[in-house]
Amino acid sequence: VKVTVLGAGAWGTALARLLSDGKNDVTLWGHNAAHLEDLLKNGRNDRYLPGIALPPEMKLETDLLKSVTDAEYVVVAVPSKGFRTVTKSLAGFSGTAISVTKGLEHETGLTMCGILTQNAPAARYAALSGPSLALEMALFHRPTFRVYTSNDLTGVELGGALKNVIAIAAGVCDGLGFGDNSKAALVTRGLAEIRRLGVACGAQPDTFPGLSGLGALMVTCFSRLSRNRGFGERLGRGEKTEAILATSVSIAEGYPTAKSAHALARKLKIETPIIDEIYAALYESKHPAKALQDLTARESKAED
Amino acid sequence: VKVTVLGAGAWGTALARLLSDGKNDVTLWGHNAAHLEDLLKNGRNDRYLPGIALPPEMKLETDLLKSVTDAEYVVVAVPSKGFRTVTKSLAGFSGTAISVTKGLEHETGLTMCGILTQNAPAARYAALSGPSLALEMALFHRPTFRVYTSNDLTGVELGGALKNVIAIAAGVCDGLGFGDNSKAALVTRGLAEIRRLGVACGAQPDTFPGLSGLGALMVTCFSRLSRNRGFGERLGRGEKTEAILATSVSIAEGYPTAKSAHALARKLKIETPIIDEIYAALYESKHPAKALQDLTARESKAED
Repeated sequence: VKVTVLGAGAWGTALARLLSDGKNDVTLWGHNAAHLEDLLKNGRNDRYLPGIALPPEMKLETDLLKSVTDAEYVVVAVPSKGFRTVTKSLAGFSGTAISVTKGLEHETGLTMCGILTQNAPAARYAALSGPSLALEMALFHRPTFRVYTSNDLTGVELGGALKNVIAIAAGVCDGLGFGDNSKAALVTRGLAEIRRLGVACGAQPDTFPGLSGLGALMVTCFSRLSRNRGFGERLGRGEKTEAILATSVSIAEGYPTAKSAHALARKLKIETPIIDEIYAALYESKHPAKALQDLTARESKAED
Repeated sequence: VKVTVLGAGAWGTALARLLSDGKNDVTLWGHNAAHLEDLLKNGRNDRYLPGIALPPEMKLETDLLKSVTDAEYVVVAVPSKGFRTVTKSLAGFSGTAISVTKGLEHETGLTMCGILTQNAPAARYAALSGPSLALEMALFHRPTFRVYTSNDLTGVELGGALKNVIAIAAGVCDGLGFGDNSKAALVTRGLAEIRRLGVACGAQPDTFPGLSGLGALMVTCFSRLSRNRGFGERLGRGEKTEAILATSVSIAEGYPTAKSAHALARKLKIETPIIDEIYAALYESKHPAKALQDLTARESKAED
């Protein structure tokens, strides 16, 4: 099968590697020609996936339109910010487009598959989500990559996008030196918050306690390898948002998603205390310790 | 208020310390006189809660009946194995008995409050559960210890008891060197399993994604401080059950609960693959790696 992966970051490279099992004809597209040349020269993606060898038969391509021509499957693994621009290349694509990007378009509140319905009207589409860290996926030498299916595309995509905001909050807990008890309580409330907002967007409530919701949420909030948790940890330790962004190799999708989710929740009039406080910490220079304190106060009031 | 805490282990000592806030008159009972003498001499519970100072006004008592006479509240913090024997002392007690013990009585399948209804018929009773590790609780210098209430006693108690079995499985994952993805998937499925068995016992389904269910489950499965996770980790690394039991200071409640939960699930005809495999690993000398492998195979089949 001819498969093209758009995006040569950690996730895209890990998936392209996984798909190169000898049966598929895999092409990896990246927008940065110098970065792709490095991959070709070193046989590794040292920037995003250090130390992991790439299969020699994997093709690299810098021409976007050329990379998707003749592809039967296109896996889109670019940051949410570039998703609309990159997928304009799929205007005439009639195969299957699979989004692995977790985020919400700020201006429209659309999920990534929502953008695909507009940009790739002739394609079939799906979202891939669940407990999966890019680095671990590539390291995990299992004979199979187990995939479960769900018809609740909105639930799967929202669970995947919103978990990253909760993970930033969980990281703030870590950075402030809070214990596991507090963090688990936060993540539990985070799941309820994701579910509330998701259901308001038309998702099925039962999707959220499953693998794509809770499973992914737990990995992101508890793993040391998680980018979003790590972003929050630095924030909790006192680094400024701008400084963290400036020194991050990969974008932590929870950062833009906090803004979009905050706007979406206001529009739909849904209570989202964790998202609100993380939004304030990221975009309104609120002190992270104060944000968590206010969150606790809000919870107490709500429970009274 | 006159409060007596039964059980001078980690949890009992931590709670007695927390209750000694200057307003309560707190007595801590322990069955081991030598252990209580150590507490008195050192002002610390070095065996179960090393390094944490005890309030000087806390009383210590080795006579069980004497300790509960005149008490308005009795907090029961003894292992599930001794719960029935110790609470026989509450036959004439007409105050409030609070169980913090998480387990199931093997012969009857009763929760701890189920035992209280038989042993303390004149008392009011409640269960305390949720994300709370004994060591962290004692370390946590917060002005308040936040308590949320639920009317679903069965759900709170079963969530608390069964999570420890799932935590042993999560620890086995750690001990075998599995990644965070696999562990999060296991814990997600564990929550579904707890809920299935809990609902069959009459619990309300919505209790399980809350703090006493999911919150406690996450702490127990992900914290390095968790005894049950630690038990599983040693098992996964190749130690024998008997050797782990022989060298453990505190009992990992998941060990007896695995046996009781396995019997309960068979009786009620509920599918509990994780509990079954952990039962086999603990009581039938099944190799932990084989147990997890069979679990994965069972899941694949169930999802097909």
